[in-house]
Amino acid sequence: MSQLLDGHKAAEKIYQEIEETLLRIAHRKPPTLATVLTTDNPASHSYVSRKVLACKKHGFRSEQHRIVPKDDKELLTLIDELNKDDEIDGILVQLPLPPHIDEQKILEHIAPEKDVDGFHPLNAGRTLIDDKDAFCPCTPIGIHSLLQANNISIEGKHVVIIGRSHIVGRPLASLFLQNRPECNATVTVCHRHTRNLKELTLQADILIAAIGRPHFITKDMVREGSVVVDVGINRIEDKNTKSGFRVVGDVDFENVKDKCYAISPVPGGVGPMTIASLLQNTLKSFLRRRKL
Amino acid sequence: MSQLLDGHKAAEKIYQEIEETLLRIAHRKPPTLATVLTTDNPASHSYVSRKVLACKKHGFRSEQHRIVPKDDKELLTLIDELNKDDEIDGILVQLPLPPHIDEQKILEHIAPEKDVDGFHPLNAGRTLIDDKDAFCPCTPIGIHSLLQANNISIEGKHVVIIGRSHIVGRPLASLFLQNRPECNATVTVCHRHTRNLKELTLQADILIAAIGRPHFITKDMVREGSVVVDVGINRIEDKNTKSGFRVVGDVDFENVKDKCYAISPVPGGVGPMTIASLLQNTLKSFLRRRKL
Repeated sequence: MSQLLDGHKAAEKIYQEIEETLLRIAHRKPPTLATVLTTDNPASHSYVSRKVLACKKHGFRSEQHRIVPKDDKELLTLIDELNKDDEIDGILVQLPLPPHIDEQKILEHIAPEKDVDGFHPLNAGRTLIDDKDAFCPCTPIGIHSLLQANNISIEGKHVVIIGRSHIVGRPLASLFLQNRPECNATVTVCHRHTRNLKELTLQADILIAAIGRPHFITKDMVREGSVVVDVGINRIEDKNTKSGFRVVGDVDFENVKDKCYAISPVPGGVGPMTIASLLQNTLKSFLRRRKL
Repeated sequence: MSQLLDGHKAAEKIYQEIEETLLRIAHRKPPTLATVLTTDNPASHSYVSRKVLACKKHGFRSEQHRIVPKDDKELLTLIDELNKDDEIDGILVQLPLPPHIDEQKILEHIAPEKDVDGFHPLNAGRTLIDDKDAFCPCTPIGIHSLLQANNISIEGKHVVIIGRSHIVGRPLASLFLQNRPECNATVTVCHRHTRNLKELTLQADILIAAIGRPHFITKDMVREGSVVVDVGINRIEDKNTKSGFRVVGDVDFENVKDKCYAISPVPGGVGPMTIASLLQNTLKSFLRRRKL
């Protein structure tokens, strides 16, 4: 069995650092995250709950907004209020939004300095051009931290990313390409149009699967001794569980795990890191806004 | 000899389209580009002159600003004026800036809707997330147009980019990864930390050299039948020329040209396309600002 990239363990270390920072500054008011939930999607509900719970557990305040917006304007008005509210350090609008809402318009309306999810194009652009002050999205930061926590350097390594979403694949490529010793990876981005995918995945020193298809990455696609990071969160039917489903990743974990050097499990790999990164980003905003 | 990716020829076609658009709208006032030159660097002078000349030749107005700024503030004030000036459709601040000037601060001060060079992080971010309205930098657009003009599709192709500058490599990767049939490339970005560079370049369907080192790409690094795009503009000593130097690319053209399917020369390849793209971006701004 290869090394397990344990997200809970790595996240615990981040939470510890966050709590130490909070203790050190001993500020009267805690960092505050505003969450905005716009749908009845159970997965979205569950994501928001976990983020709120993490806030509570680690000394952050959270402010939950539940809104079923009839149009863009209603949601923009709420964001205006949160942008102006001096108590709010971070704003998280849980995606996906209802189909009649203009997602890009909403995301661009969030004040970039409170955009702890890093989806504002200004933050995407700043991440692309090496600006360390930018908010990079939480999943890419989480993946980076997970590798660092396990002493896996990415400098000079060939990182093959499968999936080019705005939330994972593309910002991850931006982050890993940054010009600093903690980054400096050679990056290949693959997607549905990629020919000879296997030829590329077999070259990866670090393979990152962010496709959204259960068990897409099979043993024959993975290079011996490589590092495999699984970003997938797929619900598949399972009559043996109470809920009737279970969550699996994009990687065929059972068969891949003995071939690679290290692998992240699902659940318990990237997921916990994403939430820890959200709190890191919120703390970063808090410290900057209050000049601490 | 392989197919020559002739930048002058492809640029001519773009200029023709631009002139047809200008004729069709028959607007009283032409699109206007403001250029800002801040150094005595002869290369910078020459670049600006060529852009101004292209404006003159194709029915654009240009407004040249020559300023040796003593501090950021002086340059920011000029940009403020250009941002506010309704006559100005595009603002181009020629890089590099003097060393005492904060480049990112200056570039972020240009109104994104007049940022025809595409260096504002908001435009970089929008390009990364498939926003077709974003201004993408001129060299990446020029490379894309040069390939299109020669009926070379990039969809599904493995494009290997060497160089990760903010001006070429990274925005080029963003553009080529966009989710539309004219893009959809698989993209690998290499740089000084890349190990086994040759192993990667030999896999490229399309190899793009943006390194800034004369004749860096040798025949043994190029795959038989591939497409090679040379973005380099390097001055090397040449006693046989009047100026004492000549301009060469990043590719060892003479030795590579018979191995690949198509290749862009230097000069006369990407260079002319970059200027044509600048006029395209300025026209785009003009049409949008005047709601034409």
